[in-house]
Amino acid sequence: MNKSAPIGIFDSGVGGLTVMRKLIQGMPEENIIYFGDTARVPYGNKSKETIIHYTRQIVRFLESQNVKAIVIACNTASAYALDDIRKETEIPIIGVIEPGAYAAAAATRNGKIGIIGTYATIHSGAYESFLSQINPDFEIYKQACPLFVPFVEEGLFEDDLTDQIIARYLTEIKRENIDTLLLGCTHYPLIKTAIERFMGENVICVDPGLNTAEMLRQILTKNNLLNTSFSQEKANYLFYVSDPAARMTEFANQIMPFSIGKIQKINIEEY
Amino acid sequence: MNKSAPIGIFDSGVGGLTVMRKLIQGMPEENIIYFGDTARVPYGNKSKETIIHYTRQIVRFLESQNVKAIVIACNTASAYALDDIRKETEIPIIGVIEPGAYAAAAATRNGKIGIIGTYATIHSGAYESFLSQINPDFEIYKQACPLFVPFVEEGLFEDDLTDQIIARYLTEIKRENIDTLLLGCTHYPLIKTAIERFMGENVICVDPGLNTAEMLRQILTKNNLLNTSFSQEKANYLFYVSDPAARMTEFANQIMPFSIGKIQKINIEEY
Repeated sequence: MNKSAPIGIFDSGVGGLTVMRKLIQGMPEENIIYFGDTARVPYGNKSKETIIHYTRQIVRFLESQNVKAIVIACNTASAYALDDIRKETEIPIIGVIEPGAYAAAAATRNGKIGIIGTYATIHSGAYESFLSQINPDFEIYKQACPLFVPFVEEGLFEDDLTDQIIARYLTEIKRENIDTLLLGCTHYPLIKTAIERFMGENVICVDPGLNTAEMLRQILTKNNLLNTSFSQEKANYLFYVSDPAARMTEFANQIMPFSIGKIQKINIEEY
Repeated sequence: MNKSAPIGIFDSGVGGLTVMRKLIQGMPEENIIYFGDTARVPYGNKSKETIIHYTRQIVRFLESQNVKAIVIACNTASAYALDDIRKETEIPIIGVIEPGAYAAAAATRNGKIGIIGTYATIHSGAYESFLSQINPDFEIYKQACPLFVPFVEEGLFEDDLTDQIIARYLTEIKRENIDTLLLGCTHYPLIKTAIERFMGENVICVDPGLNTAEMLRQILTKNNLLNTSFSQEKANYLFYVSDPAARMTEFANQIMPFSIGKIQKINIEEY
């Protein structure tokens, strides 16, 4: 395997760019290919069967681009599809659930952890499963927040209505005296400030993206796949989507620390 | 063509059931096949290219079921795909835009008409185009309301947050002194009461579904396709989706005047 080959990362839409941002910060020498399934976003209300089917197509596409490792940035796809897809894939493939669970476990002091995410992620029980393995005494509280994704996609990061919907979803979980809140969806870091304001200063909001980047680095190191031959000024980043909707570029340029340039559309159903 | 063959009707998701309900009320003797593209919902933020591709696949599926006519219940698909798809199809195929425009034209007294819908429907200009043909003197005001669909899908038909988001989107259009508001998305009839409360009693909210059923009857009559051989106790209704998410059944049973029974999943990408 070529060490200078790119890392593949994908999400149901543009939310995974928050994870890609962490990868770039932690490993600026790595080339990266991003795929956003903008034609079929969101995944969070869909069935396990459909999510596995979509994830399989995307992994095939990324493999066709000769990536050396794959990051499933989407929590829903990580929760429902990672185990099945890993069996079918030769290259290292990681999701955000395991690193997110370890980050939350490291952050909590009182052992009371909240998890928020889409219906599918919450229903899957994936985060609890990892957290219970780390420490069976953790007390876990969870809440699906299905309207957070559309609010973020509308760019309502700081808005009175966003504050109200946060209060609607999180009032109960706040009452449980949790000290750690796992942001179990790639869109949620974009309203982290508003969530933290509601939860209060005693609650740490954990974004799995950071620990995912760290876990990927360990796996690349172990497999002798780190891009040590790096000599360019800036690594190479390529962006692909399944739907060429104009809003993607605008949204991506808000999230990324540089202008993302050209986004290429592919027909994902062919993979 | 067999007169007892079913009518095919589809939507990006479950919203089109509000149109199917009108078809059943107007033509209880007609057999109907419904398809909801639940694996790829929503369409409203997607590109014309993707919407035509998805519509083409669904029309092929419905044709494989030997339908005698097709209703595109989805406003976004009607706005972007009807003209292209009609050229490829032998059987009568209608959308909701033309009947909706005629219904609004018949309802207005002062000639000031508001149109609300998804980004794609509003951006397409399809409603204005028909309205201007009917009467070039109509004054038309339009507004995309992208958060209405997720609110409806969350079942927030009567909710303080729904009232606030309605006020957010419709305050400007209300100021224009319109007397008719076209509900240009199949989800919106489900929050019609809340929209009417905000707009006030001088504004008529037009649901294109009713006139679409009437227009379909005229087309079936003209083509000698009405199901005159009807003798069963109840017509035959079949429901198909592209994703078997459990919430579909629950939602459908809220909308339809009878329990919809079994919903079959098909792989729409194969069509």
